[in-house]
Amino acid sequence: MKLNIALLAGDGIGPEVIDQAVKVCNAVAEKYNHEINWTPALTGAAAIDAVGEPYPDDTHEICLAADAVLFGAIGHPRFDNDPSAKVRPEQGLLKMRQKLGLFANVRPTFTFPSLIDKSPLKRERIEGTDLIFLRELTSGIYFGERGRLDNGDTAFDTCTYKRHEVQRLAKKGFELAMTRSKKLCCVDKANVLETSRLWRETVQAMEKDYPEVTVSYEFVDAVAMRLVQWPNSYDVLITENLFGDILTDEASVISGSMGLMPSASVGTKAKLYEPIHGSYPQAAGKDIANPLATVLSAAMMFEDFKLTDEAQAIRDAVNKSLEQGYVTEDLADGGKSFKTSEVGNWLAKNI
Amino acid sequence: MKLNIALLAGDGIGPEVIDQAVKVCNAVAEKYNHEINWTPALTGAAAIDAVGEPYPDDTHEICLAADAVLFGAIGHPRFDNDPSAKVRPEQGLLKMRQKLGLFANVRPTFTFPSLIDKSPLKRERIEGTDLIFLRELTSGIYFGERGRLDNGDTAFDTCTYKRHEVQRLAKKGFELAMTRSKKLCCVDKANVLETSRLWRETVQAMEKDYPEVTVSYEFVDAVAMRLVQWPNSYDVLITENLFGDILTDEASVISGSMGLMPSASVGTKAKLYEPIHGSYPQAAGKDIANPLATVLSAAMMFEDFKLTDEAQAIRDAVNKSLEQGYVTEDLADGGKSFKTSEVGNWLAKNI
Ligand SMILES: CC(C)[C@H](C(=O)O)[C@@H](O)C(=O)O
Ligand SMILES: CC(C)[C@H](C(=O)O)[C@@H](O)C(=O)O
Repeated sequence: MKLNIALLAGDGIGPEVIDQAVKVCNAVAEKYNHEINWTPALTGAAAIDAVGEPYPDDTHEICLAADAVLFGAIGHPRFDNDPSAKVRPEQGLLKMRQKLGLFANVRPTFTFPSLIDKSPLKRERIEGTDLIFLRELTSGIYFGERGRLDNGDTAFDTCTYKRHEVQRLAKKGFELAMTRSKKLCCVDKANVLETSRLWRETVQAMEKDYPEVTVSYEFVDAVAMRLVQWPNSYDVLITENLFGDILTDEASVISGSMGLMPSASVGTKAKLYEPIHGSYPQAAGKDIANPLATVLSAAMMFEDFKLTDEAQAIRDAVNKSLEQGYVTEDLADGGKSFKTSEVGNWLAKNI
Repeated sequence: MKLNIALLAGDGIGPEVIDQAVKVCNAVAEKYNHEINWTPALTGAAAIDAVGEPYPDDTHEICLAADAVLFGAIGHPRFDNDPSAKVRPEQGLLKMRQKLGLFANVRPTFTFPSLIDKSPLKRERIEGTDLIFLRELTSGIYFGERGRLDNGDTAFDTCTYKRHEVQRLAKKGFELAMTRSKKLCCVDKANVLETSRLWRETVQAMEKDYPEVTVSYEFVDAVAMRLVQWPNSYDVLITENLFGDILTDEASVISGSMGLMPSASVGTKAKLYEPIHGSYPQAAGKDIANPLATVLSAAMMFEDFKLTDEAQAIRDAVNKSLEQGYVTEDLADGGKSFKTSEVGNWLAKNI
């Protein structure tokens, strides 16, 4: 197969972890006789510095033309404590999500047998956890009207949802549930928010089309609790953009390390794969960041190309590195650890 | 002292847990020579059934006239899956918060030595946890304009904050931090939301008035993670209404039981004390609900009346019941357990 992949390394540790994923993908391509054509493009703070724009048009064209996008991370602390900054790296991320129509962010949370005791949660609470969030990614309060009134003394943000936006995300949720345990949880705050009531009534109306799926409706605050209490009681969860942001990060802790959780964003015009961790600027340039989440995101990419063996080869190499302790310092418990680039080399060699 | 307390039992297990708090308060009053005058009033689904309104004017007058309000819980499942219900119990709760000016919801999270192993989190992660959230309670997306457009196919909710609303909440946060470890964390989503940027800039501007307080600014998704990873790294946290709803429920899990966490809501016109758990309809009427969160909320009430010994007497009785295993079934680990009313009687006797 011939694959054109856009490579958006982004900020902070983005370039370092992306490098390792490229090595691993190239090893897969060699072993399974594929040809990968990588096209790097600018994004985030790096793009602001270079061209004054966090998601330049050139980058967008490259993403549209590619079969998939592999994404690192964006964000830089110099923008975070400056509420008045006019251009922010995150705007690039949001613009990219919207312009590429990436309405469904797929975030699995699972445990690795060899890491289970690293979790802040007790073993018996998390064993068997294997859940997937589908977070709506191109609407809601992230994309509504916002601004200031009263000379800046009043601020507002608007959360808006349209029925078809809920439907297309929920459809993916029902379909995914059908391939798994047929349990779907719709997370909302329907006791307060009108958008949540639209979510709930829309999903309720779709239930009849998937008679085998058991749907539960839970409030976001209750889910924030139960995710910590009994994560293995969940399977597929669907939710709106902001709730998804909070809950998927919360859920990522279960595995014992944020540095492990991959994600895919899919929709109408492109497919994008990225680790769920951020740009982690404190670690940038030190060759210490954990590349596994990015490498596992590449595995999700091969999976979506229906290249199942290739995806499995990557996951096997990752599991082997975890079992043999060939890991970065965040996973080494003070024992022997390896550099980001060493882990990447090792994984590529073990494909 | 003569105390007039409004008693809003509400729905579900509300009346049962409130009954126990009343017993305990009366025992305190007797021991310390106070006179408590209780005035019951209707709220929630119970009030809808009786007078068609979840927070009737009569109830409001009673709350305004009282020195404090002791509140159970409201909410009934018959409203939850009916997105079209016109009157909802939760509206009463929101109306009450707003009409009583309860802008600051104080929610502590702490551990009990005798229960620490009941937490889903590992002992070493939670030992020493003693944090307090100040959740803004009368503004934000809970109270903004909301509605439908396009024949119901588009829904919207508006999140609005005014600078003075942030200031008064943050002021309480800074003041509380000064009485504790002088660490304050402002939780927002300033990389996306305009209201969060207003929060951040307002709190930043107040820093100079509290030079001893170290302020950190963290994104809500990051806090959702770190609360599970290192809860004991936090002390005082301030945040807006919806983030507070989600994060305080998440934090409540740390103690090992939701049935234990009290809260106070304070502001301009009244003080209200309530357990953070909900109305738990499945348990209603069974005399099995855990009354400790409500009883500990009453302790917060005595504390606010500057009746410190009285508050301590309640906490001592609660600790003793936990140590001696005189607890409801949720805390009994399959061992001997007691009824809600029995625990209430025992606590009153042990004041
Ligand atoms: C950087 C930020 C805008 C982004 C989000 O909130 O969506 C991030 O937290 C994420 O989850 O990808
Ligand atoms: C019942 C609901 C409206 C309420 C809220 O969201 O504020 C509850 O969850 C709470 O935290 O008191």
